[in-house]
Amino acid sequence: MEKTLNVQGMSCGHCKMSVEGALNELEGVSAAEVNLEAGKVGVTFDESKVNVDAMKEAVEDQGYDVSA
Amino acid sequence: MEKTLNVQGMSCGHCKMSVEGALNELEGVSAAEVNLEAGKVGVTFDESKVNVDAMKEAVEDQGYDVSA
Repeated sequence: MEKTLNVQGMSCGHCKMSVEGALNELEGVSAAEVNLEAGKVGVTFDESKVNVDAMKEAVEDQGYDVSA
Repeated sequence: MEKTLNVQGMSCGHCKMSVEGALNELEGVSAAEVNLEAGKVGVTFDESKVNVDAMKEAVEDQGYDVSA
């Protein structure tokens, strides 16, 4: 399954790595790609293993605001 | 000795940590503090051990443009 999260406050390459890293650490997430300019993160995941709330929480834990 | 470097492109807390960390790793640097809003880095150092060119290079190696 694929889902795009809207994430505020990602400003640089470090932010990109933090957010992608946090998502990729979740079991069930197979890909995460940040688009800094758009403020969006594309995530590919197995919906039987992880849900959008868990993905939002992982990104928020890195210090960013997320809307699904 | 104290010196302020002007650094372009530092946009978030990760940038701040990268730049401060790179400077603090230099022998002779005793303190480094980034001001993100101002785009400035204050450095306290022993001028017998490290020079401004080495400090500029350390920051540039992190991906930022520096003017002394």
